[in-house]
Amino acid sequence: MKKSYEADDRAQAHVQTLQAYVPGEQPQGEGWTKLNTNENPFPPSPSVAIAIAAEAAKLQFYPEPSSQALRAAIGEAADLSAENVIIGNGSDNILDLITRCFAKAPGVGHTVPSYSLYPVVAGMSGQALMEVPFDRSMRLDEAAIASLQAQVFFLTNPNAPTGVAFPVKQIESLLQLIDGLLVVDEAYVDFGGESALPLLKDYENLIVVRTFSKSYSLAGMRVGYALAAPKIIGILDRVRDAYNLDRIAQAAALAAFADREYFDARRAAIITTRESIRTALDAYGWFTYPSAANFLFTEPKNASGESGPEIAAALFKYLKEQQVLVRYFPKHPLTCAFIRISIGTEAEMQVFLTAINSWLKHA
Amino acid sequence: MKKSYEADDRAQAHVQTLQAYVPGEQPQGEGWTKLNTNENPFPPSPSVAIAIAAEAAKLQFYPEPSSQALRAAIGEAADLSAENVIIGNGSDNILDLITRCFAKAPGVGHTVPSYSLYPVVAGMSGQALMEVPFDRSMRLDEAAIASLQAQVFFLTNPNAPTGVAFPVKQIESLLQLIDGLLVVDEAYVDFGGESALPLLKDYENLIVVRTFSKSYSLAGMRVGYALAAPKIIGILDRVRDAYNLDRIAQAAALAAFADREYFDARRAAIITTRESIRTALDAYGWFTYPSAANFLFTEPKNASGESGPEIAAALFKYLKEQQVLVRYFPKHPLTCAFIRISIGTEAEMQVFLTAINSWLKHA
Repeated sequence: MKKSYEADDRAQAHVQTLQAYVPGEQPQGEGWTKLNTNENPFPPSPSVAIAIAAEAAKLQFYPEPSSQALRAAIGEAADLSAENVIIGNGSDNILDLITRCFAKAPGVGHTVPSYSLYPVVAGMSGQALMEVPFDRSMRLDEAAIASLQAQVFFLTNPNAPTGVAFPVKQIESLLQLIDGLLVVDEAYVDFGGESALPLLKDYENLIVVRTFSKSYSLAGMRVGYALAAPKIIGILDRVRDAYNLDRIAQAAALAAFADREYFDARRAAIITTRESIRTALDAYGWFTYPSAANFLFTEPKNASGESGPEIAAALFKYLKEQQVLVRYFPKHPLTCAFIRISIGTEAEMQVFLTAINSWLKHA
Repeated sequence: MKKSYEADDRAQAHVQTLQAYVPGEQPQGEGWTKLNTNENPFPPSPSVAIAIAAEAAKLQFYPEPSSQALRAAIGEAADLSAENVIIGNGSDNILDLITRCFAKAPGVGHTVPSYSLYPVVAGMSGQALMEVPFDRSMRLDEAAIASLQAQVFFLTNPNAPTGVAFPVKQIESLLQLIDGLLVVDEAYVDFGGESALPLLKDYENLIVVRTFSKSYSLAGMRVGYALAAPKIIGILDRVRDAYNLDRIAQAAALAAFADREYFDARRAAIITTRESIRTALDAYGWFTYPSAANFLFTEPKNASGESGPEIAAALFKYLKEQQVLVRYFPKHPLTCAFIRISIGTEAEMQVFLTAINSWLKHA
């Protein structure tokens, strides 16, 4: 070694203490029923593979830098224009752009519990993280949010990991109360939530974030987007990597977005399955939050009718031994007695229910 | 409008004044000979399309988050390990990660002229930009670079837009002189440059950045990477989007990287074509920098033997009218009398030479 470099000491102060986001587990090998990361159990529209094959012949050439065709299609569908839209390399990319541009003192706010990426992008911006705790009712405390005076506030609607949806009336009253930006993350809205999109015409302090990962079956393709006032989009574009979406991602998302029939059918199937699983969980006597998303957040009881963190942890472990992977969040009092179950195909959910029945016999 | 939001005033101070990167022109319509953005004229290895088709069947599932298989393959080929490698959504993503983590006062340095993204990522980090001017010799002034005391210094080798390569001995002496990080951007190194990779074992203050865009014909796929000490990679990973590469980009890059035979043949063809075009430009009596890249930077003369900004601008305009697109950088005294020509196929370069001959008859 001729020259050393103490990377930890040399990094920016806020990077030295930054905790990276930890994605949900991606199990290796065969045989897993994967209900842990809210993926869509159905492949994307068949038109996606056709669009991908056509684009694969042009890979030596740079993509169109701003995903203009996709912006136009999304803007039109929202009764807005391309100038209201920015496309990200996944909605995570969009969330990061927002904090990079608009996070200022006193800081960035979010509800707790919610999507665990918000603290990461707040930390990456070097700004303080401010929290509005939920209670077990999971009702939104608008006054508490407004009192934070956050420059950027992230709200997932429908919320995660609970699936609880907030009415658009409540989003509007929140927009009136706050001075900063409200980022409504609608990753799951297509499964039954009420979108804040109609509010964009009246509220410039609103950014609506969406993704192709869930309802469009493109988690593997990394395409997200945001809709907001053109002047907000213009600022986000300054910080966006010039070529943030590759050719294939643009073509795949455009094809998936165009096939409304496929989209509607798969979405309806997931909602139907979710409700049948919810009925099954009710029959076990488990408390489950009403879900407008493609997952259920439920408080399991063992055969003796006991619930709590030990019961939820034991069920999570048992299911994993059966190669059924769900998500367990042990670190928060409002989540540690629950498990989150992504809605798979009917067949996958039968595997899940069979495993639950088997656990109930042993637990 | 019920609530306005002055996005320009509300953005972070350094974002308010930020100039976004302006990519090279992507002409619409047919008939263009596109020699302006240093793309590879050959499609990627046929194995890429096969890998893409296989991966397209799994798009509903999240990708492996850290591109681990690609890190391992790249690390092994460099006689290092996966811990020495990070994969980016294009090398632009990597350059941005570096400034986000390590840009501190007194600022970020680069040579002028060089890649126009460096000022953008420096600006995005909110740090000052420091410049080391070249003179017409395009020799590297190591003492001037060291005297800046930049926390991060970007050096393109072979350089752009000139194509001039710096010997690895000179990179080593620079690494000894400086206290900050030297980022050697080797986007074009496969076309004849000398890589700094062997220096990584001795110098922890070195980051080598590479891309699949040029020599691997994957500009449309957005895959870049960096090699550095594991502790530097670990810090960059904290700020990286958790799923920054989609499934298809990972599979495509891995397939392209594995096909050495295809890679070597196309690279050799481009070098051969470059040298034949260089000979043709020499025959016109034009000054051209020696190029170790997939482009040539030449100072055109008209039929009367005159050169200068007006001549270069006139040639650029004439070529564009003939649907031959090259790159012209009018804003700097060292570039304004030159044009940059990406090396296309033999057929494309014949179109280029025919247009030049025609211009010489009229100019």
